[in-house]
Amino acid sequence: MDSLAQMDALVKEWMHAARTEIIQGFKQKIAVWTKSGRNDLVTNMDRAVEAYYVEKIHTFFPEAVVIGEECHHQQDKYQTSGWVWVIDPIDGTMNFVKQQDHFASMIGVYHNGVGVRGYIFDVMNDDLFWGGPEKGVFCNETSLQPPLDTGLRDGLIGIGMPYLVHNYRNLQQVALASSGVRIYGSAGIQIIHVLQGKCTAYVSYLRPWDFAAGKILAEALNLQVKTIDGCTLDMLSSSDVLVATKNAQKDIQSLVAPAR
Amino acid sequence: MDSLAQMDALVKEWMHAARTEIIQGFKQKIAVWTKSGRNDLVTNMDRAVEAYYVEKIHTFFPEAVVIGEECHHQQDKYQTSGWVWVIDPIDGTMNFVKQQDHFASMIGVYHNGVGVRGYIFDVMNDDLFWGGPEKGVFCNETSLQPPLDTGLRDGLIGIGMPYLVHNYRNLQQVALASSGVRIYGSAGIQIIHVLQGKCTAYVSYLRPWDFAAGKILAEALNLQVKTIDGCTLDMLSSSDVLVATKNAQKDIQSLVAPAR
Repeated sequence: MDSLAQMDALVKEWMHAARTEIIQGFKQKIAVWTKSGRNDLVTNMDRAVEAYYVEKIHTFFPEAVVIGEECHHQQDKYQTSGWVWVIDPIDGTMNFVKQQDHFASMIGVYHNGVGVRGYIFDVMNDDLFWGGPEKGVFCNETSLQPPLDTGLRDGLIGIGMPYLVHNYRNLQQVALASSGVRIYGSAGIQIIHVLQGKCTAYVSYLRPWDFAAGKILAEALNLQVKTIDGCTLDMLSSSDVLVATKNAQKDIQSLVAPAR
Repeated sequence: MDSLAQMDALVKEWMHAARTEIIQGFKQKIAVWTKSGRNDLVTNMDRAVEAYYVEKIHTFFPEAVVIGEECHHQQDKYQTSGWVWVIDPIDGTMNFVKQQDHFASMIGVYHNGVGVRGYIFDVMNDDLFWGGPEKGVFCNETSLQPPLDTGLRDGLIGIGMPYLVHNYRNLQQVALASSGVRIYGSAGIQIIHVLQGKCTAYVSYLRPWDFAAGKILAEALNLQVKTIDGCTLDMLSSSDVLVATKNAQKDIQSLVAPAR
């Protein structure tokens, strides 16, 4: 087994073990705390799964730097050189708390700033999307083909709710020009829909752990992952991220208003 | 077997047969036509499933009047007296076309205007929600308990996208007062989420076949199904329909702006 195949095997094992813990955890009361505001949540389960991933990564990949949603007080240590693992133990924590469904667990692995492996686990559906540039993308053991290069008008689009309500950068016009808006409440779940061609685009304000895994998978399927203005993403910063087919990206950029 | 148990057995059989046809149909090209506008679609499959349901209903329940999404040119024949079956063969046709996922097949059975049985079939998940006033509500063979009476602030809410973009009746403020908005693109799928307590409310402009089944199921779980102003629904007309817990309904009504 080559080293990437070994990495795949390990990460799949960890994610399935985390799934078992999560489902077990639903039988107990979930402890919930707020972070930046009343709708920005963290639970005991986010912390437990992140700690589990961090421990495993440090054991098997001692040279790795870990960037995680729940340990970002260590932001001064962030770097892109060497092996960097970007993890989001539970993406869509609000859904996790309110629905016990529609959340993802995500890991992105970068080497000197280049994406090597992305893993997005739709936990409740037990569907693991994984892959990388030389490998292609799989849902469990089924290979995904690049989705059709559909334009905005002919596709569904995911847009973060505040962007829609406040018409940020003219995104209401983008919404109305599409075939419809879908809001699932988890960046991971939204990006999975773009990978599968179920939506043609997803735009939202995302933090590094929200897009690290998705960027690798989307680019391996010829999708564009840029800022809303078409610029390269800074892997250590939060941005207005657009994941889209090439045609939808062009269409959306022609409608987006300049930043104020 | 009493006559309602017999009805349940028949409808389940028809819906599962329709599911087989639908999944089979994905292997062929779907024929799509637009109706009132470019995002209001009908396919060969909507028509085939409706024709199948109508034929079965007329065979087994010859006294029944059928109101269906794809035969509403017969609107002059609509009535509420006697046995009335309200059917939506594929609810969420846009999702059916673009995602081949996240759509529902729905049947509501009324007698002299009183709901008797509702059936909402989440086709791709193979989850049939069914029941009625004396029966309670089931997902397949599992009984559902009434969801917690959560208020707007502590729950997720489904809102039709145009309402959100155009701030219809102040619904942007309703959205911002909630824990978050979810848009799945099918009234049936949105209502299932309210039945399960995954969302506390759903508000949208709905036609009779969009809410007929859901009203019966939601009311059997102590949920409110009214117009956005708290009025009783006219079963033969389209309305701004709000499906919600009692507390969320109160909270939403206190924020909704008067109709212009």
